[in-house]
Amino acid sequence: MITDKQVFDALRGVMHPEVKRDLVGLGMIKDVVVQDEGITLTLVLPFKEIPIKDDLVRSVREAVAALDSSLKVEVKLAEMNQQERAAFMTQAEGGPKPVQSMNKIAHVVAVLSGKGGVGKSSVAALLAVTLNRQGKRVGVLDADITGPSIPKIFGLHDPPLMGPMGIFPAETSTGIKVMSINLLLPSEDEAVIWRGPLISSAIKQFWQEVVWGELDYLVVDLPPGTSDASLTVMQSIPLSGVILVTSPQDLAGMVVRKAARMAQHLGVTTLGLVENMSYAVCPGCGERIEVFGPSQTMHTAMQLGTPLLGRIPLDPELARRCDAGDIEGYAAESFGPIAEQALERMPATKSRPIF
Amino acid sequence: MITDKQVFDALRGVMHPEVKRDLVGLGMIKDVVVQDEGITLTLVLPFKEIPIKDDLVRSVREAVAALDSSLKVEVKLAEMNQQERAAFMTQAEGGPKPVQSMNKIAHVVAVLSGKGGVGKSSVAALLAVTLNRQGKRVGVLDADITGPSIPKIFGLHDPPLMGPMGIFPAETSTGIKVMSINLLLPSEDEAVIWRGPLISSAIKQFWQEVVWGELDYLVVDLPPGTSDASLTVMQSIPLSGVILVTSPQDLAGMVVRKAARMAQHLGVTTLGLVENMSYAVCPGCGERIEVFGPSQTMHTAMQLGTPLLGRIPLDPELARRCDAGDIEGYAAESFGPIAEQALERMPATKSRPIF
Repeated sequence: MITDKQVFDALRGVMHPEVKRDLVGLGMIKDVVVQDEGITLTLVLPFKEIPIKDDLVRSVREAVAALDSSLKVEVKLAEMNQQERAAFMTQAEGGPKPVQSMNKIAHVVAVLSGKGGVGKSSVAALLAVTLNRQGKRVGVLDADITGPSIPKIFGLHDPPLMGPMGIFPAETSTGIKVMSINLLLPSEDEAVIWRGPLISSAIKQFWQEVVWGELDYLVVDLPPGTSDASLTVMQSIPLSGVILVTSPQDLAGMVVRKAARMAQHLGVTTLGLVENMSYAVCPGCGERIEVFGPSQTMHTAMQLGTPLLGRIPLDPELARRCDAGDIEGYAAESFGPIAEQALERMPATKSRPIF
Repeated sequence: MITDKQVFDALRGVMHPEVKRDLVGLGMIKDVVVQDEGITLTLVLPFKEIPIKDDLVRSVREAVAALDSSLKVEVKLAEMNQQERAAFMTQAEGGPKPVQSMNKIAHVVAVLSGKGGVGKSSVAALLAVTLNRQGKRVGVLDADITGPSIPKIFGLHDPPLMGPMGIFPAETSTGIKVMSINLLLPSEDEAVIWRGPLISSAIKQFWQEVVWGELDYLVVDLPPGTSDASLTVMQSIPLSGVILVTSPQDLAGMVVRKAARMAQHLGVTTLGLVENMSYAVCPGCGERIEVFGPSQTMHTAMQLGTPLLGRIPLDPELARRCDAGDIEGYAAESFGPIAEQALERMPATKSRPIF
C-alpha cells in the first residue's frame, strides 16, 4: 500500500516550470488521501486561472501514477488564500527579501496617462500632498526613469541614504517619502539612456529594495507610454487601482484610451479620469480660455465607462510652485474631491502581479 | 615565398566579431604587400575609432603570422570613405535591402524632447507642412509606437498598402508621406503593449522596409523619454540633426536637457530649441497669459549652447485643427522662420549609425 509520504516524495520531484521550485515546497499540494480505489489530492494554485494550469495537473497526475499505475488518480483544484499566496510569492521570488518583508503598504495607486505632459506628475504629487494633509502616511515612487519630475516638484536634491537593509527614501518637508532615479544621479540634468530591461529593473528595485516602512498610500508616477515602465509596474506591483490623467484635446484622449486598455488587459482597476489643463483664467478680465480647445474628455470617460473625477484648470501659480520645488505650499483645494472620489472607488482586492 | 592570395585567403578566415562576416568580404583589407623582410597590409575601419579596433588588429596579425611566423607583419590602419562605408554597412546588414536601396532621402531631422506633451508631434507636423508648402518632398516617420499622434493630426485612417517590395506610406491631402503604427492597428484606440525590443524593431522596419521613395526631408517624431525608441532612432538612422521642443516650465526644461545630453552622447547635432505653449492670448481683452508661468527656456538654451529658434503660443485653433485631422489647413506663419533657422544649421555630415 502506498503511503501519503510516498505521494509527497513523488511530487517533490515535480518542478513548477516557471518558479523552478517543487510543488510541495511551494505549498501547492494538499489533502492527499490514499484509498484502495485510488489516490485523491488537491493542487492549490496561486490564482484560479493560470496559463500553466493544465500542464501542472498533467505533471502531478503522471508523477503519482508512476508510483502505481493501477491506481486511479484524482486531482482536485483549489485557489490559495491571501496568506498562502503571500507565502507562495515569497518562495517564488527566492526567499523573503529583508526590506520588502518590513514594508507595510496598505494601498498602491498608480497615476497613468499614456500621453506625456498632461500633468501626471503634478496630479501624483497633488494626490500625495492631499492625503498627507489628511494625516495619512504617504510615499511617492517615481517610475518615470528617463523623465523624472517628482524630486524637483518637491524640492528634493540630496541623495538618499543607503543602509545595509536597502535604500532609504528621501523625505519632503511635510514628511512625504520619495524615491526617484533623479535622487541617484550626479546632476538632475543627466540623461538616463537605458533600454527597457534596465528601466524595469530600476522600478523593481524601487519597490523591493526601498525601506518604505509603513504607508497608508504609495502613489506611483508612471511615465508616458505603454511599454516597459508601465508594464513592469502593472505586472509586478499589487495595485489598488490607477488614476488616468488627460488633457482636453481628443488627441490626448486617444492616447489615454490606449493606456486605459492596457490597464484593462492587465486586470488593473481604473479609479477614474482627471482632466488637467482644462482652461486658463485671464487675470485681466477673468475670462475662461480653453487654450486646448473645447474639452473632449467626457467623450473619453464615457467610452471607457469610468467617472470623470474632476477638471483642473491651468494655474501659473501651480507651475511656479512646481518649478520652485514647493508644491507642498500650494493650496490645491480643488484636488480634495478628486482624491476622495478616486479612493472611494478602490476595490477590496488588489491587482495580481503576474507570475 | 608567400603570395598576396595566401594572405587574403588567410584573412578570409577572420570573422568580424559583430557582423559575422569575414574581413576580406567586408572590404576591410587593402594594399597587401609581401616582401622579403615581411608583410604589410592596411586594415580599413568603417570609423576611425571603434571599440573592437585592437581586437581586429590582433586577429589580422595572428592570421597572417600563422602563414610564416618568421615574417614581420605590419598592419596599417585607415578609415573608409563614404562609399566604402555604405558598401560595408550593406554587407553588415546582410546584403542590400530591396526597399532601402530604392529610397533616396536627402535629410532626416528628428524632433526630440524627452518630455511628453510639449507638442513634439505638432512641431514635427508643422515642420513637414511648412517644408511641403515650399515645394519640398516630405515624409513623416512616427517613431512614437505607444502614443502615436501623427495620423490623427493629418486625418489619416486607412491602412497603408503592402506590396512585395515593402509597405507604402500613407499620403496626406497635400502629398506628405506618413508612416505610423496607428495606421496598422485595428482601431486607433488600441494599445500597443510592447517591451523595448519590439518597439525598436518596429522603428527599424519603418526606416528600412517602407517605400519612402525620393524625399528632401524625412521628419521623425520621437516619443518622450531617452529609452529604446529614441536610442534606436539615433543609433540606426543617419540624422542631419535634432530639433528640441520644450515648454516654458523649468520642469520641462530639465527633462529636455536630459534629451539634449543624450543626443550629445550619441554624436547627433542639435539644430536648436523650440519653445511651445509659450503663452495664451485672451480672446476677451487681448492680454498675454503665461499659463505655464514665466519662461525658463532661455536658461535651457544657454545651458545647452543651442539657439532658441522661436516661441509658439498656445492656440486653440491649432488644437482644434489637430483634433480634426486638418493641420494642413492651419496657417502656421510663425513656423516659417523656425524651420528656416533649423535647416540652415544642418551640418554637412550626418550622424553615424552605430555598428
